[in-house]
Amino acid sequence: MTNPIRVAVTGAAGQIAYSILFRVASGQVFGKDRPVHLKMLEIPPAMKALQGVAMELADCAFPLLAGMDLTDKADEAFDGINWAFMVGAKPRGPGMERGDLIKENGPIFVGQGRALNRGANDVRAMVVGNPCNTNCLIAMKNSDVPKDRFSAMMRLDQNRAQSLLAEKSGQPVTAVTNMAIWGNHSNNQYPDFENAKIGGKPAAQVIKDETWLKETFLKTVQNRGADIIKARGASSAASAANAALDHVRDLIQPTPAGDWRSVAVCSNGQYGVDKDLIFGYPVRVKADGAYEVVEGLAMTPWAKAKFDAVHDELRKERDVVKDLLK
Amino acid sequence: MTNPIRVAVTGAAGQIAYSILFRVASGQVFGKDRPVHLKMLEIPPAMKALQGVAMELADCAFPLLAGMDLTDKADEAFDGINWAFMVGAKPRGPGMERGDLIKENGPIFVGQGRALNRGANDVRAMVVGNPCNTNCLIAMKNSDVPKDRFSAMMRLDQNRAQSLLAEKSGQPVTAVTNMAIWGNHSNNQYPDFENAKIGGKPAAQVIKDETWLKETFLKTVQNRGADIIKARGASSAASAANAALDHVRDLIQPTPAGDWRSVAVCSNGQYGVDKDLIFGYPVRVKADGAYEVVEGLAMTPWAKAKFDAVHDELRKERDVVKDLLK
Repeated sequence: MTNPIRVAVTGAAGQIAYSILFRVASGQVFGKDRPVHLKMLEIPPAMKALQGVAMELADCAFPLLAGMDLTDKADEAFDGINWAFMVGAKPRGPGMERGDLIKENGPIFVGQGRALNRGANDVRAMVVGNPCNTNCLIAMKNSDVPKDRFSAMMRLDQNRAQSLLAEKSGQPVTAVTNMAIWGNHSNNQYPDFENAKIGGKPAAQVIKDETWLKETFLKTVQNRGADIIKARGASSAASAANAALDHVRDLIQPTPAGDWRSVAVCSNGQYGVDKDLIFGYPVRVKADGAYEVVEGLAMTPWAKAKFDAVHDELRKERDVVKDLLK
Repeated sequence: MTNPIRVAVTGAAGQIAYSILFRVASGQVFGKDRPVHLKMLEIPPAMKALQGVAMELADCAFPLLAGMDLTDKADEAFDGINWAFMVGAKPRGPGMERGDLIKENGPIFVGQGRALNRGANDVRAMVVGNPCNTNCLIAMKNSDVPKDRFSAMMRLDQNRAQSLLAEKSGQPVTAVTNMAIWGNHSNNQYPDFENAKIGGKPAAQVIKDETWLKETFLKTVQNRGADIIKARGASSAASAANAALDHVRDLIQPTPAGDWRSVAVCSNGQYGVDKDLIFGYPVRVKADGAYEVVEGLAMTPWAKAKFDAVHDELRKERDVVKDLLK
C-alpha cells in the first residue's frame, strides 16, 4: 500500500472541519489510491467533541483512512505532516472590530507557524481560519518552511463569483473561467469580472449590464458570508470546506491551459503589492507542480481603485500584528 | 450532457442532509459524469434555513449540480424523481418511548409514501429517518411504487461493525467482509459476527475471544449512536450521511463476488421473517441491477435468539402503526 499522506486539520471539532475531514478521508482530495492519516488539533475544551468526530470517522469504515491522531498540541499535530488545513481560529465576538480579531488570533498562528517546522520536508499549509490572509502571514513569518508552501483561501470567493456569473448569464458554472479574486478574503476583496470569461468571451460582453457587474455582483460576492449567516442562522461551513478541498486540489494538480485559480500566496511584488503580503492572485500550477502568479492582466482605473483599497486593507492588517512578524 | 438524475432529500435543512447534499452534488454517489438535480423538502419553519443551504450549494460551483428545487410539499419534492433520501423525521423528545416516536412519525411517511407515486418510472426510496425500518414500511404500504424499490439504512451499523472488527483484529477495514446486520436499525439489531470474515477467514477464528464478540462487540455496535451523542454532544450526522451514500451505491452497483451488504428490504419471508416487514438482511446486487437476499446462512441457537428478538421488535413496531398500513 502507498505510504499515507499525513494531513493535519486544526479546529478539527468545528463545523468547517466536520465537512473537510470526512471528504478528505473519502479520497476526494488526494485521490482514490492514496491512504490518509489524519492529525486533528483542537483546544482542550473541545477534545471530547473531537473524540466524537473521530468515532464518527471510524464509523465510516473509509478504506483510505490509515490512522488518526487527536491532540491539543500543535507540535504533535504537525509532526511529519505533508499538508495542514489551518481551519481553527477564534470567531469574532459581538462588537469586536476586525483589528481586535486579528490581535486575538495572532498568537495562535505564531505557535502554529513554529510547529509547522515539525512537518515533513514537503509540508504545505493552507489557512481557512479568519482573517486568513493575515493569519497565514503570521504563520509564514514564524516558520522556517519556505514561503511558497503557504497559502490562504480565496476559492470560496472564486466559487461564489463563478456561480453568480453563471446564474446571471444562464450558463453552466463550468462555462465561467478566469475568475480572479484580488487581495483579501474580506468584504473589500475585488472579484475581477473584467478579466473573467463566460463561454470563452469576456464576461462583460455576455452580461451587458455594467451596473449589475459593478454593484450587485461585487457586493453580493463581498457580503455573501453575512447573507448565509442571515439565512442559515450559522456561518458557511460545508461550502467553506468544499472550497478548502478545491484549494488543495488546485495546488496539487496542473491548472487547465488558459485558466487560473484564485489563491492567496506570498507576494513577490507582483502587481506592485508589498512583498510578503499573502495576497489573493490569479495563480497557475505548472506541470512540474510549482505555481506562478499570472502576470500582466489589465485593469481599468475603476478596478485599480478597488485593487488599491484591498491592498491597503492588507497593509493595515499587517501593521496591527507587526510585533508578531519576525 | 446526460440527463440529470433527480434526487429528493427530505429533512434537507437538517444535519444529516447537510452532509448528504454536498457529497451527492460533488458526484460521490451517481458518478463523475452524471449531473444531479436536487429536490429538497423541509417543513415550513425550516424553509429559511434551507434557503441558506441552497445558497451554500450554489457557492460550491459544483459542475454536476444541474438544478435545485426547495419546497415544503412532498408532491413537489418527489415529482419525477429517481431517488428519494428520506432523511427527515421527528426526533425523539425527552421521555418519549419508541412507540410514541413511531406514532408521531407515521403520518409523515403516509404522506410521503403517497407522494412517491409522483416519482419517475424508476423511482427508488431509501429511509434514514428513524425508526427507519417501520417508517419505510409505512411509506411502502401507502404507495403504488413496487416494494423492491424501498429500503431502509443498515449500512451505518454495518460500517460500525466492520470498523470495530478491523480495529480489534489489527486488520484494515477492507479485510472485514460479509458483515450482516439482521433486523432493525435499533439497539436490538443483531450484527452477525458468526458469518463475518476477516481476511477471508471466519471472524471468530481471527478474534479468538468469544466473550468480546458476544458482549463487547454486540453492545458497542448496538449502542454506538448513544455513545456518539455523549462524546459529540450531537447525534451522528456525517457518519450517517456517509452510510446513506454507501447504501445507495450498494444498490446501484453489482456487489463484489462473495461479499454482501446490509440493507433493510421488504421481506418475502426469507429466514422465516413476516412478509412485508422491512428487515435488515445480507443483500447482493446482481449484474442486472436487481437485488437478492442472501439465503442459507447458518446461525447458532445463541444467534437465532438474537434474530428472533429483533424480529419480534419489528412485529411490535408494525402493530403500533397497523392503522396506517393499507
